[in-house]
Amino acid sequence: MNDHSPAETRREPLDAAELHLIDRYWKAANYLSVGQIYLLDNPLLREPLKSEHVKPRLLGHWGTTPGLNFIYVHLNRAIRAHDLNAIYICGPGHGGPGMVANTYLEGTYSEIYPNISRDTAGLKKLFRQFSFPGGIPSHAAPETPGSIHEGGELGYALVHAYGAALDNPDLVVACVVGDGEAETGPLAASWHSNKFLNPVSDGVVLPILHLNGYKIANPTILGRMSDEELRSLFIGYGYEPFFVEGEEPAAMHQAMAATLETVAHRIRAIKTRARESAELHGRPRWPMIILRSPKGWTGPKEIDGKKVEGFWRSHQVPMSNVRGNEAHLRILEDWMKSYGPDDLFDEKGTLKPELAALAPEGSRRMGANPHANGGLLRRELKLPDFHTLAVEVKEPGGTIAEATRVMGVYLREVLRLNAEERNFRVVGPDETTSNRLDAVFDVTERVWMEGIEPYDVHLAHEGRVMEILSEHLCQGWLEGYLLTGRHGFFSCYEAFIHIIDSMFNQHAKWLKASRELGWRRPISSLNYLLTSHVWRQDHNGFSHQDPGFLDLVANKKADTVRIYLPPDANTLLWVTDHVLRTYNRINVIVAGKQPAPQWLSMEAAANHCEAGIGIWEWASTDHDGEEPDLVMACAGDVPTLETLAAVDILRQALPNLRIRVVNVVDLMTLQPKDVHPHGLPDREFDGIFTTNKPVVFAYHGYPALIHRLTYSRTNHANIHVHGFQEEGTTTTPFDMVVLNELDRFHLAMAAIDWVPGLAVKAAHLRQQLRDKLTQHKLYVCEHGEDMPEIQEWSWPYKTAANAGD
Amino acid sequence: MNDHSPAETRREPLDAAELHLIDRYWKAANYLSVGQIYLLDNPLLREPLKSEHVKPRLLGHWGTTPGLNFIYVHLNRAIRAHDLNAIYICGPGHGGPGMVANTYLEGTYSEIYPNISRDTAGLKKLFRQFSFPGGIPSHAAPETPGSIHEGGELGYALVHAYGAALDNPDLVVACVVGDGEAETGPLAASWHSNKFLNPVSDGVVLPILHLNGYKIANPTILGRMSDEELRSLFIGYGYEPFFVEGEEPAAMHQAMAATLETVAHRIRAIKTRARESAELHGRPRWPMIILRSPKGWTGPKEIDGKKVEGFWRSHQVPMSNVRGNEAHLRILEDWMKSYGPDDLFDEKGTLKPELAALAPEGSRRMGANPHANGGLLRRELKLPDFHTLAVEVKEPGGTIAEATRVMGVYLREVLRLNAEERNFRVVGPDETTSNRLDAVFDVTERVWMEGIEPYDVHLAHEGRVMEILSEHLCQGWLEGYLLTGRHGFFSCYEAFIHIIDSMFNQHAKWLKASRELGWRRPISSLNYLLTSHVWRQDHNGFSHQDPGFLDLVANKKADTVRIYLPPDANTLLWVTDHVLRTYNRINVIVAGKQPAPQWLSMEAAANHCEAGIGIWEWASTDHDGEEPDLVMACAGDVPTLETLAAVDILRQALPNLRIRVVNVVDLMTLQPKDVHPHGLPDREFDGIFTTNKPVVFAYHGYPALIHRLTYSRTNHANIHVHGFQEEGTTTTPFDMVVLNELDRFHLAMAAIDWVPGLAVKAAHLRQQLRDKLTQHKLYVCEHGEDMPEIQEWSWPYKTAANAGD
Repeated sequence: MNDHSPAETRREPLDAAELHLIDRYWKAANYLSVGQIYLLDNPLLREPLKSEHVKPRLLGHWGTTPGLNFIYVHLNRAIRAHDLNAIYICGPGHGGPGMVANTYLEGTYSEIYPNISRDTAGLKKLFRQFSFPGGIPSHAAPETPGSIHEGGELGYALVHAYGAALDNPDLVVACVVGDGEAETGPLAASWHSNKFLNPVSDGVVLPILHLNGYKIANPTILGRMSDEELRSLFIGYGYEPFFVEGEEPAAMHQAMAATLETVAHRIRAIKTRARESAELHGRPRWPMIILRSPKGWTGPKEIDGKKVEGFWRSHQVPMSNVRGNEAHLRILEDWMKSYGPDDLFDEKGTLKPELAALAPEGSRRMGANPHANGGLLRRELKLPDFHTLAVEVKEPGGTIAEATRVMGVYLREVLRLNAEERNFRVVGPDETTSNRLDAVFDVTERVWMEGIEPYDVHLAHEGRVMEILSEHLCQGWLEGYLLTGRHGFFSCYEAFIHIIDSMFNQHAKWLKASRELGWRRPISSLNYLLTSHVWRQDHNGFSHQDPGFLDLVANKKADTVRIYLPPDANTLLWVTDHVLRTYNRINVIVAGKQPAPQWLSMEAAANHCEAGIGIWEWASTDHDGEEPDLVMACAGDVPTLETLAAVDILRQALPNLRIRVVNVVDLMTLQPKDVHPHGLPDREFDGIFTTNKPVVFAYHGYPALIHRLTYSRTNHANIHVHGFQEEGTTTTPFDMVVLNELDRFHLAMAAIDWVPGLAVKAAHLRQQLRDKLTQHKLYVCEHGEDMPEIQEWSWPYKTAANAGD
Repeated sequence: MNDHSPAETRREPLDAAELHLIDRYWKAANYLSVGQIYLLDNPLLREPLKSEHVKPRLLGHWGTTPGLNFIYVHLNRAIRAHDLNAIYICGPGHGGPGMVANTYLEGTYSEIYPNISRDTAGLKKLFRQFSFPGGIPSHAAPETPGSIHEGGELGYALVHAYGAALDNPDLVVACVVGDGEAETGPLAASWHSNKFLNPVSDGVVLPILHLNGYKIANPTILGRMSDEELRSLFIGYGYEPFFVEGEEPAAMHQAMAATLETVAHRIRAIKTRARESAELHGRPRWPMIILRSPKGWTGPKEIDGKKVEGFWRSHQVPMSNVRGNEAHLRILEDWMKSYGPDDLFDEKGTLKPELAALAPEGSRRMGANPHANGGLLRRELKLPDFHTLAVEVKEPGGTIAEATRVMGVYLREVLRLNAEERNFRVVGPDETTSNRLDAVFDVTERVWMEGIEPYDVHLAHEGRVMEILSEHLCQGWLEGYLLTGRHGFFSCYEAFIHIIDSMFNQHAKWLKASRELGWRRPISSLNYLLTSHVWRQDHNGFSHQDPGFLDLVANKKADTVRIYLPPDANTLLWVTDHVLRTYNRINVIVAGKQPAPQWLSMEAAANHCEAGIGIWEWASTDHDGEEPDLVMACAGDVPTLETLAAVDILRQALPNLRIRVVNVVDLMTLQPKDVHPHGLPDREFDGIFTTNKPVVFAYHGYPALIHRLTYSRTNHANIHVHGFQEEGTTTTPFDMVVLNELDRFHLAMAAIDWVPGLAVKAAHLRQQLRDKLTQHKLYVCEHGEDMPEIQEWSWPYKTAANAGD
């Protein structure tokens, strides 16, 4: 706040010539924006506008667009004046026409889409394609050059901007936040991201809060707040706000140009000061801009006697029924002509050279900046040899380990190997340690730009672990980081990942649409570890118990999503290594953090995970070459433990029962091959699950997911799934599985019930199991912990099995 | 800010005697909190503490609890001093032990749970039950008297508080917001709820931001911000912040008491001024309190040489392994004895009378306030006779109407009938008009406490429609409103309801747990209209297209959730009326807002909706008493339209094909009877869907949901579902269904493919259908709208069918 450079005193930095040029460029962008919404033909209005030139269905949003165009042209000027390396995040995604118009004007659009040429024919196509079948969507989208942000669902512009700026010390991320979006929860929290931005090693986020005052049919909260309250709010958030307010174009151009000059100097001063003595200064007070301009600025002031400019009626298409209403047609023509198209485009329909010269050049153009097509900049991660980190498992069940703790060591090595590249981050809502990933703190810290006390641990300005109690911000930061070509990992309590369901949906949609665009280069996958999962919420209880995120994930396109349920540490290691090598996917891993028996050596784990599903011969008893009587299948660590314990019971009591144990790591193997690329062919599926034998399937989450994945399989009618039945509280680990009938006793009883003839033969065993459940209940209510035989159980057949039992 | 009453000058309002009493009461609450976390027995430490007195598994959270207790005891004082009608919302739900302790001390706990008596035996049970199998959860929960808020998932405390305060002009909702929770998005936006609170007709929310500085393993953002920035932030949010900071108990008691005096006077002044001249004043600047106190306050300062009090190590259980560590056992004993239990409880273990006298009496006790058990106050809504609002439908397809517009008229009548009771609100994210519910503005307005301009429409301080661009706030306000015994309705764009997935989950869990408690009275259902749905996102495209919320809903307990897909306006009317009569449920209605053909008269609609599913005889051709060749089933308005159009094609081309048309309104009818109370018995299901004929099922959402609901039905293998395949963009309505193969042509082709023998017989028709799809593509890409034959299609058999065709 103390760097009042001389430039700040120039309140009118534009001379008349530059002012005129900038205003014309803005008019060109506005003209193209209106044209996209309305016109099929006659793009430069070189003949009188007729109804057949107008689209039959008028779709799109005008209201926010002129403001977005205004910002774009001024950012262009700042880029040229200060040689900025900048990208533009368009929070008001409805302003798609503006983003398209500007990238067209600067030339990037035609470079990417050569059919949209810089002439009258190209203009016609540009207009026609917008919101038109076979054309482009109405929002800023993957199709839009220079965008890393689809504006459809609001709330994530600023957090994407911060994610993009991390570890890009020379990048300026200009982020327009609409006053509608500013009302959302995620956006309201995103302002605090400044507490995590290191002025030395990260780039700059320049938030531009665009107050045009209205949403669809309401004023906005921030738009109606006084400047005094707004100033106070943003100072409170840690920024230095600059106001640009008005509607008279010339004055507004001067004010915006002057403010961007001031802001550029502020930023330079902050960066310089930080580089000179990073340790002396904490978080700087970054500048931000509050732009108040009319909604639908420069559009029709009134239509049919009703206020349009400066009001919510300009939100979408200001006039409908243009084809059928001659008066509306004339308003449209006058409106578009008010921009003076002949003063903007030459005879061929090409932007006049003195205007074209205003845009930055090459990759300095915001539509061509490679950071907005992050795959161009992406470098492969260096990954450790995970075999060296494996847990030694000599015999199934013979080792106890915490799976995620082992994973933490792997992540530590990833951080170490890529420390120089600074292209890998771990995010989580204050749970990295709780989730047992704290080995990462051997090589890095949590990033923290606020004060650090002597007794604080693992906090540093330079940390690569990002923790905030907001799943929204974790997700958004990581998305922004990945979209700009880097890598990352998100660990989260399983239940609370639902908080970002909708962000997950939107990212999956972005990936799906990006895949279909050749020019968008692949980005790293978004990788989740869901832990502290439903079965082990000892400290928390019912509110923390929900395994339903996987159901949501399974709805998305098969080429985008993967779900892994590694049963132990070595399988988790393999899966972690695997997902970090993939791109354009969303990988979800579910694994527990509690001490648990380990089943597979690293070699066995690798073989098992490669297949994604497999028969565990060492636990099975169908070694005689005949079909089993029963398949006991499991997916997830706790279900695997309970299944093996149930098999143990059955093997002891019914030694002649032929049991096949199947474990599923990659849930997508259950789907048919034509539905998912990981799906098992029916013949293989039948080979594993048989065509007619009962399958008792212990699954980590809601049973319905297994049914829907397998519904078309031959043996589906015989698959009996045990999983989470929405029963939970604060209780012992084993009581949780009992409440949901996923425990060894219920699984063993299910086996007895479903194998033909066994109900009679094993009636006594069944009663014993029932009694065990009663014993359990009495014991836990008395002692508050599980029976010793439950706590101490481990797989007993390890040596016998190896000996060929 | 100008009401400096004399009381504000009393900086030390407590005399020595009162200070001592208050401090002892606080110690009693802290003592009971520690006891719950640690002790099985010896509750008053009247014998030396031994390891067997300690729980084997130590679960719970100490860190936040002493601060919560401190607030509670001071609120008790304020309630008595000012005869306040107050409830306490405990944002830090981890502080469950504190809420339990305080409601026990004030006597409400033992009134509700008589086995937890106010003596030594009761204390022992109180301690033992906490986080113990068969006992109570560790968080503030439905089991906790006086709570309307489960603290497990953070972010919603303040928005619940505002929902509770609406239309309760005499209620004070004290809401503790932890500094962890304050980092979440929903909470960060919730502060703006003050823009919707009417000082005349609504109650008061008193936010108490509790900065104890730490989360699980990190400092908090707000905790490390300077007072200057905090003050600025909350002034910016529109509050008048008061700071209470320190750790020395006596000084803190004086400061808190003084601040609550000031705050009470501020509130009274605001209410008085507003009542005197409501129109002259806009939003008042409500007071709020920022309390900085040490995490784990009064607990052990250090354990094993590490800082605990005032640091995150006190977050959960400060010392683990107390049974096995004699030193820890002694620390625990010293810690608990530091509260002086013998000075607090008499020989029988009952709170000493001079302390008990500090609590308010009767329903003024926060644990006994009926607003926190809203069903006690709930009055039935007055509902209009919906038959009078029906759309006239003389013949199927003979009327065009917008279903949600008709619903809007119904909601208007509900608002009108209950205007005096002020117990019904409509919430939505700026979409009430967009969703065609604007008839409600005939009788009310949108509530808006900021400035109102002359050209604004439907804004008023007194409005009953609440709009903010935050699904989180809409959901949270409504939850708070319902939980305190009122009624409401949430309309939302379908895709963006995923934003509140996790809030939905938590509310469903609250309802499930509440049901099991006899003393919690039923509350009104949470009712959603999802509209602007996946099939009609003409203005917006792919980011706005997601029907997956229903998959999430279907995971929840069958006694809690209902899903309705009314195919037209009259069925929507019936369903709307129905859901407003229900309680303790979450009802989800999906219905479109666009002009569409109407199928059923009100009488037919009522019969159809009563059953929830039915054969549409008038569209079917299996009138010969034999089984049909084919079932064409549909659920959802657009699928119904496309199914009927497909049936039209088939009937014309293949007059001998016996087609049965089935429409599903209540999706839960598809589930087996033993899974959901609305499920059809298998025999009825088989009667409708046959046991072996092909079923082409056109469904509104992701096809997998139909498979999982029906997987155990006899004919499941023959059910072929068409639905959303995650293909979308900005295009024409019909092109959207084509992209997902839900259109009439694909449905008719599916019929041909699945009816045995028809593929050959109808090969020519099949080719025609294929050609139609090509024609469609060419037409929309050329014209930008759907072919006239698509736009103009309506059900043609209406008269012929009535004539017995």
